Formats: sequence, structure tokens, C-alpha cells
Amino acid sequence: MLWREDRPMRIALLGCGTVGGGVYEFVQERTDMEIAYVLSRRPRPDLNCPVTSDFSRIVSDPTVDTAIEVMGGRQPAYEYMCAALRAGKNVVTANKQLMSERYGELVQLARENHVALRCSAAVGGGIRWLTNLESTLDMEPVLRVSGIMNGTTNYILDTMTTSGLKFEDALRQAQALGYAEVDPTEDLNGADARRKLVISTNVAFGCVVQEPEVTTFGIAGVRACDIGAARKMHRVVKLMASARLLDSGDVACYLEPAMMPQGMHEAAVPENFNLISITGMHIGKQSFYGQGAGRFPTAYNVMQDCLDIRNGLTRFYTDKLRPARVDNSSIMRPYYVRVNGMDRWLQTRIDKMLDCGIITTPVAVSEIHAWARERKLTETGGFLASLR
Amino acid sequence: MLWREDRPMRIALLGCGTVGGGVYEFVQERTDMEIAYVLSRRPRPDLNCPVTSDFSRIVSDPTVDTAIEVMGGRQPAYEYMCAALRAGKNVVTANKQLMSERYGELVQLARENHVALRCSAAVGGGIRWLTNLESTLDMEPVLRVSGIMNGTTNYILDTMTTSGLKFEDALRQAQALGYAEVDPTEDLNGADARRKLVISTNVAFGCVVQEPEVTTFGIAGVRACDIGAARKMHRVVKLMASARLLDSGDVACYLEPAMMPQGMHEAAVPENFNLISITGMHIGKQSFYGQGAGRFPTAYNVMQDCLDIRNGLTRFYTDKLRPARVDNSSIMRPYYVRVNGMDRWLQTRIDKMLDCGIITTPVAVSEIHAWARERKLTETGGFLASLR
Repeated sequence: MLWREDRPMRIALLGCGTVGGGVYEFVQERTDMEIAYVLSRRPRPDLNCPVTSDFSRIVSDPTVDTAIEVMGGRQPAYEYMCAALRAGKNVVTANKQLMSERYGELVQLARENHVALRCSAAVGGGIRWLTNLESTLDMEPVLRVSGIMNGTTNYILDTMTTSGLKFEDALRQAQALGYAEVDPTEDLNGADARRKLVISTNVAFGCVVQEPEVTTFGIAGVRACDIGAARKMHRVVKLMASARLLDSGDVACYLEPAMMPQGMHEAAVPENFNLISITGMHIGKQSFYGQGAGRFPTAYNVMQDCLDIRNGLTRFYTDKLRPARVDNSSIMRPYYVRVNGMDRWLQTRIDKMLDCGIITTPVAVSEIHAWARERKLTETGGFLASLR
Repeated sequence: MLWREDRPMRIALLGCGTVGGGVYEFVQERTDMEIAYVLSRRPRPDLNCPVTSDFSRIVSDPTVDTAIEVMGGRQPAYEYMCAALRAGKNVVTANKQLMSERYGELVQLARENHVALRCSAAVGGGIRWLTNLESTLDMEPVLRVSGIMNGTTNYILDTMTTSGLKFEDALRQAQALGYAEVDPTEDLNGADARRKLVISTNVAFGCVVQEPEVTTFGIAGVRACDIGAARKMHRVVKLMASARLLDSGDVACYLEPAMMPQGMHEAAVPENFNLISITGMHIGKQSFYGQGAGRFPTAYNVMQDCLDIRNGLTRFYTDKLRPARVDNSSIMRPYYVRVNGMDRWLQTRIDKMLDCGIITTPVAVSEIHAWARERKLTETGGFLASLR
């Protein structure tokens, strides 16, 4: 639904927790937007606006033009988003899980109903990454997407690197600072960053890849000796998301720890910051750096999406929904591997022995990830990282 | 003039050299834009569009909605831009010199004529810096702007740092690669970066500062021993542009070499790349990285400006034109200084002697820049850099 110039944008805020509360605060300071409803199961006497637990009231109110979904999780967020889109309301969401798992379906639904669907806050927190990607696509094809898309793991790796903390202590510190959740599993195993990578890949290449096809290796197994091994090679361990369009039309798309040369841009990303890059045909490499999470950065990006809608935007970042296969067999790199007990596969791929771990000859991403899964590398206390 | 939906955007290309030629090529590949005229003093049989040396023909053609000024220099570019704005045509320019020197006047003229004036390519080459800054300003005040805004000097400093070349050899290499002009004076003395800093400062803080007030120290005097001194302190020399809004409403705004800690983001900027950052109240630090110059990156940014206009944009990045004074007296930092012959002023500010140069106690930017000017530091073979 297009917002009408003569009145403020009327927003239904679905969820008013950390991010939603930030959005609420931002909107209070503006005259061009107002919160028509907050959807909340419990009473919210602290809020100066109508609060309801009845979503049907919101979706049937024709004065609401935009729904902001910041409840997170699959249900009922999915149901509400679909209903809002079908009712002709714009949807702004920070829900990376839904946008990754239900990408094609949601984009299609927005398109059919001629409304805007925006999810800038779902990838890169406060970084205007998806909108910058969208602008680049107006001009030319994008060849590559890569970057550091998870602030929690970057904080842990950075703290281990700069302060020499053990993994457990770095994790505890991240939790104490609110950078890691009480259950940090989805950050550590890469599931969170993978969602952001899937959304970025889909937008960048106008395709739809299936999340489970995106090979992922996390940092739950990283130890001080791995950080030390990287340092001896003048490198820094980072959790890197990578995607590339292949000549076949398929995409290479994977998430893994990487040892980046110290002078490289990515190596210098501190604390819980994110850095995401695109390579365009003529423009070369462009990078975007900022807070990857947090109340106000995320709320900021949600608000910017609303402003874009207020300025007349009525679409998703792309309308291309070509199904694409993930194929990581053509990307070859040497890897650092630390494993309890050698095996035949690894034996034949040793290029160099280190004090702690080995460096392999160049191996395909698909091959070493398959090996690591089969070996249960993380669970048995091992680690790997590609050398970039 | 608003572009009408039913026909392509009709562009007058004022100048068709390096950048203009890139724009010409980009437009040839599109159906939503066309080159109505190329303004050229000499015949251009290579171009597949009307070529004229008569600007009055362009400005009086009501079918032309947008003029792209990529001739550079002061005159006749200034005259043409004003005439185009007065004739109700949108103007897209890459001319940092004019946008810096005539900022208030040109923005005012665009405003009066209700047309768009855009100059994204004037700052940061291919980086969508000014538009990202504009988006941030839609949300909240910006507190700081800083960054590496000149690719030529970054190439020279990076080459001296990573390959150990002497200044003269690094400069020659930059010239051979087309990264430095035959006469590199305005890159080396900071004049080029200062223009970009002035434009960024004005947009960021909604003000108008006078270019000559922006204290500038360049890198013409940098020698291998300075790079070496930085390395011993685990630092890297970069030419940094900095601006900050002061409580008084004045701005601190200056350009100088800085020794950045090795782990910092800015220290990792390679070759002729640029990195520009803003700090917003809630969003924190955001950085934008990309090609700072070159045919296609610059043409890309010009094209993106045209696309924004095609999407309905009819303004400059800000409409605030508050005159502001530059005051660099409150920014205090230690400096690295290498000078031929000590003097009384410097003597009283020594904190530490190095093999090559000294480190001062914290000194105000305004004070040390005034001293360097008086001492003719660069001309007498000296150098300075703040420690960040």
C-alpha cells in the first residue's frame, strides 16, 4: 500500500522487544510516521499507543499501511507476514530466519500484492548493505559477495586474537557484553551467518538457493593454538561468508573460518562489527562496514526501510527468482586443519606440518567440508580454516 | 526538471573524456536513458549521438532534462552548470573543485529552480558515499566524518609501506599506472582531498565552510624514514581527512597525514582505494570502501545519480546552508615531526626523540599546522603526522 502524502505513515509494530523498542523510540521522535498498533501478548502500559494481542484487528485496519515484523522466529511471524502482504500492507522485517527459509515465497507474495517487502536489518544489522547491493544491481551484474556477517563470532575471534583469551573466556565476555546470547549455538555453528549469506546471495544473483545446500563450518572448535598458528603466518582468523556466480548459472556459496592476511581489510574488522563486500563488473570491490547487531543499529535499518517506502518504494530488492543449485566443487584453496588423529584422506593432502595442525594442498570447498562433516570435526575438538 | 515516465531520460553530456566516455558507454547499454547531446569543442565522429560545441543549443532544448558535467575545472563548467540549473535542468557533476568552492551558491540555485543537483562522483570516486550520508541524515544527526579520500596519495603511501619504495619511485609508479597525474601537485599537497572533505563536511553538518579555512598538510615531504618510524610504532601512515561538529556549532575540519595503528581499519586500505566513515548518534561508525577514482568507478557513481533522479529525486543531499567557522584549536594529539633544525616552539613540545624525528606532547591541530606553515615544513624537506 502506498503511503498517502497527507498523513503520517501508519505502522503496526509486530513485537516490541529489543529491536522493536528501538523502532518505537525512533518513531516517537518523528512526525512523518506513527505507531498505529503494537502487537503484544502482554499489556504494555509503558507504551503510548494502542496495544493489541489480536493480529486480525491490525490486518483488517485499512489505515495501517506498513507492518514491521520484529518478533523473530518462525511462527507466528510467518503467518502474520503473509497475512499482512495479502492484505496489501508493506512489510519491513528483521527476520533473517524467515527471509532465508521462505525467500521465494515471500518475495513472490509481495510482488503479487504490489507492496514493498524490505529486510535490510536482517543482513548486517545497521549496515545499509542490501540497499547498496540493490543500487549496484540497477547498474550492472554483481560477480561476488563476501564478508563477515556475524558480530558475535567476530567478537570472539577478535578477542582471542588481540587479548589472547581462550575460546571459553572470549565467549563468556561476549555474553557478558550482550554480544552473544545465552545459547550461542546458532552463532557459533554458522547458522545465523548462513541465513544472511543466503539472503545476500539470492538478491545479488537474482536467484533462490536452498539454505541446507550452503555448506557451513562454524567456530565452536576454534582454540588458542589455531589463532596462534594463524599469527605465525601473519594471518587472522575470521568467519567468512562467500558467494560467487558460476558460469553454469549455479552459485558457489559457503561459510567457513578463513585465515586472512594481516594487511587485508577483513583482518582489521574489530569487536562485533561486520564488513560485507560486493564485486561488480565495472565498479570493482565495494565494502560496507558497521555495527552488525544491537538495538539501535538494527532499529535504524528498519527505520531506513520505512523511509524508503515513504519515499515511494513498493518492491523487494530484486524480482528475479531463478532457482539455483549450490556448487562448491570448483573453489580450491589450501586449508589449515587441526584434527585428533590423521586419516587417509588428510594424509594424502598434507602440504606442510605445523606445530599445531597442518596446511593442505589446495582442496575443493565441497570436498573438505564433506570430510569435516563425516569426521565430525568440531565435535571431536578439531578445526579448519581456509587460507585466503 | 522531472523526467517523464513515457520516454527515456534525455542527457546532455558536458565533456566526453575519461569519465564522460565511461558514462557514454554505460548509457549505450540502457534503454531508460539516452544521450541527447555531447558538448565537445572538437568533432567526435566516434560518438553515435549529436555532438555540438554550442552550449546554448543544449540549454535551450526543452527535451533535455539532465546535464552531466564531467569537463572539470572552473570555467566554463561553472557557467554551464548555473545556466543548466536556471533552465530547470537537473545537474549531475563530478566536479569537486566547483562543488567545494561554490557550494552554497550552487545548492541554492538548484533549490530555487526545484531541480536535482548531485555530485556523488565528486567525493570517493565510485563509492556511494554522499547518498549513504544523505540516508543517515534522514534518521539522525551525524557527529563525525573522516577517511581516506585521495587514491593517489594512498597508493604512494601504501607502496612505500608494503614494498619499501622511496617516495619518488612510488610516485613514478603511480603515474605509470595512471593513478597520479603528470602534475601531481594537487594530490600531494592535499588540495584534492580537501575539496572532498569540504563537500562532505557541508553535507554532513548542514553547513557551509570556506575551503581556505580547512587546514591542510600533504604528503609531498614524506620519506622512507617516516614510514619506517611509523612501522616501529606498529603504525601506518595515511592521509586522513577529519571533520567533527563542535558544541559551538563551528566545525573542526582538517586534512593531515596520520600514523594509524596497524590493526585499524584505515591502516588496511590498499592501493588507490578510499575509505570514508561517518559516526551517527545511534548507528555508531559506518564505513564505505571502494575505488576512489578511475573511469568506470567514477562514471558508475554519475550513472547512479542519474538513476536516483530518474526515480524521482529532485534535490541536493541537504538543503541546510548554515555558515560555519572552522575551529581546530580543541583537537589535541601527539604528533610525529621530522624537521631540519629544531626551534624553540618544537623544543618545548618534545615528548620523545626517535632515530628519525620526534614525538610531541599533545598539540592542537590549529597550532601545529600554523607552525608547519610558518616553518615551510614541506618545502624544507620536513614532515609531520598525527598519532591516532
